[in-house]
Amino acid sequence: MYRNFAIVPRIIFGRGSFNQLDEILAARRTSDGGMVFILDDVFQDRELRGRVPLHEGDRLLLVNVDDEPKTSYIDALVAEIKAGDSRVPAGIIGIGGGATLDIAKAVALLLTNPGSAADYQGWDLIKRPAVYKVGIPTLSGTGAEISRTTVLTGPEKKLGINSDYTLYDQIVLDPELLAGVPTDQWFYTGMDCYIHDVESLQGTYLNEFSKAYGEKSLELCRQVFLEEHPDRDDKLMMASYFGGMSIAYSQVGACHALSYGLSFVLGIHHGIGCCIAFNQLDEFYAEGVAEFRQMMAKHDIRLPQQVTAGLSDDQMEQMVTVALGLAPLWENCLGKNWRELMPRERARRLLSRM
Amino acid sequence: MYRNFAIVPRIIFGRGSFNQLDEILAARRTSDGGMVFILDDVFQDRELRGRVPLHEGDRLLLVNVDDEPKTSYIDALVAEIKAGDSRVPAGIIGIGGGATLDIAKAVALLLTNPGSAADYQGWDLIKRPAVYKVGIPTLSGTGAEISRTTVLTGPEKKLGINSDYTLYDQIVLDPELLAGVPTDQWFYTGMDCYIHDVESLQGTYLNEFSKAYGEKSLELCRQVFLEEHPDRDDKLMMASYFGGMSIAYSQVGACHALSYGLSFVLGIHHGIGCCIAFNQLDEFYAEGVAEFRQMMAKHDIRLPQQVTAGLSDDQMEQMVTVALGLAPLWENCLGKNWRELMPRERARRLLSRM
Repeated sequence: MYRNFAIVPRIIFGRGSFNQLDEILAARRTSDGGMVFILDDVFQDRELRGRVPLHEGDRLLLVNVDDEPKTSYIDALVAEIKAGDSRVPAGIIGIGGGATLDIAKAVALLLTNPGSAADYQGWDLIKRPAVYKVGIPTLSGTGAEISRTTVLTGPEKKLGINSDYTLYDQIVLDPELLAGVPTDQWFYTGMDCYIHDVESLQGTYLNEFSKAYGEKSLELCRQVFLEEHPDRDDKLMMASYFGGMSIAYSQVGACHALSYGLSFVLGIHHGIGCCIAFNQLDEFYAEGVAEFRQMMAKHDIRLPQQVTAGLSDDQMEQMVTVALGLAPLWENCLGKNWRELMPRERARRLLSRM
Repeated sequence: MYRNFAIVPRIIFGRGSFNQLDEILAARRTSDGGMVFILDDVFQDRELRGRVPLHEGDRLLLVNVDDEPKTSYIDALVAEIKAGDSRVPAGIIGIGGGATLDIAKAVALLLTNPGSAADYQGWDLIKRPAVYKVGIPTLSGTGAEISRTTVLTGPEKKLGINSDYTLYDQIVLDPELLAGVPTDQWFYTGMDCYIHDVESLQGTYLNEFSKAYGEKSLELCRQVFLEEHPDRDDKLMMASYFGGMSIAYSQVGACHALSYGLSFVLGIHHGIGCCIAFNQLDEFYAEGVAEFRQMMAKHDIRLPQQVTAGLSDDQMEQMVTVALGLAPLWENCLGKNWRELMPRERARRLLSRM
């Protein structure tokens, strides 16, 4: 049985394509409710904020992603939107990095599905279509623009709301929006894509569909992070899109699983968490890790060291539990007998090195 | 201004995925009308025919594609479907090569749009959504499974019905269905993709989106036609999909334009017509043509020679008119001043060599 997978059905790509957002939304302004733009608050005083095509009745919500998105934050945003206007919005437009794109997806889902975001962490628990939603990345690498998940930290777990309804209806890929990202953040987010690709290409789930996307994404990552190209932002944006498409039929692996443990217990952001984890995974991804270190050296990136050093026994065990809870990732990495190959002690040993 | 382009929103890929067709259609059996399967009549006595998941009220239409699809043929099929059942079908499922996939798309469009298929040859002339439609390729290379066109020969021209409504709602990519294709047909259809890629990558319209898809498609074509791989059918299916996606932001070029002339006047099929044309286009695509000849040699393909030799002056002029009518293709190939670079005499000289 193969997955019959849904993909984002409408894409606009190009430098300056953000300027066409107003026109794109015009066709969707059919309901009484306005558009709700969800913008990373890093843009609070930046030019992009003024370019958001606000009409009367629309709202602009600035969201903070200093912490990774929490289910409680989604619930609060949904409550705020409902309190401001009893009508369902005509659309939700997320503008920002992976965290902001995930927040916008989750808000769009929770506007039409009752209860808390935490109720839907898992696979295919969402029962009703979301509000129309548009994703506009200003950072590339996570694949959030194309994925069928929105990764949230809940009271009990860090886990995505995975469903076909989670997908954006439209994405706007404007490489100009990547300008001005600090190098560290650009690197860590880009590495999320690079690591996706390595994990997908070395995984047991791989088929020719995922391979074609993963190989090209990897090649683009190499051009971006090891070579010099004037259009590197265009390339990184495509790498991220292709990396996300590669996962459609495949999965990530050990690195993503372990990084979820780091994020849950230590609140470490996803991109940097993946980098910290990957740097200790030579035994799974020797060539990929070596190349990753070349990329770090070229961009003078210094990873935090020993982030798990001061943790208590309980915290380490919690980290292991979160990481090993991601069964499909381990199965993709190690095969059906992954539980034998990755006992708790081994996972803990790996985490203790990070 | 960039195109905000629509893509096929649902894909299933994998060997044997055809077996999931019944389940995929189940969710769409909501209207009174049944499903109409449009199957290439080459499968009349083949196993695949028996695997079509027919339910009560469904119909199976065998279509003949010895000639390239004509608008009159579409009109006749639509009339036949309407005469058999006054209800609008719940879905149209096209199973076959590019011609069959195009027929199914056109029939789905003409069931909900009044008049003749010839009325809609052009760009964005279709005003109403088509019937739900599924495309299942049994030959790979044309990109018909992913394109927003259905190429038809009308009373006056060979030209596609280009619209967002033309796109399939679902495609089933099952590499097992490619087994048993005669070598010549496999080669000519695959070359349609290879030539797409060369024309897209060398075109003036190219951007990073089209480049990423086009380069990977080209690489897959090389693996299929110059190397030996046990999973070459999987690779060719992906090459075709990627080749089609590459065109989304780009265009084909001189070869496709000239081949339309050959097809219109001589009734030559699209794949072989592209090969005949490409073989004379060293002056535009030197490296691509050289590699194409290597591929021909490896697979012992002998192209028809001098197909335009016996044509009248009128016929030659008609061919030139059809070829030069495809302005976007020439602009992609030669730039905005293509009319100066490609006067009628030059086009005629190229055609006379074929």
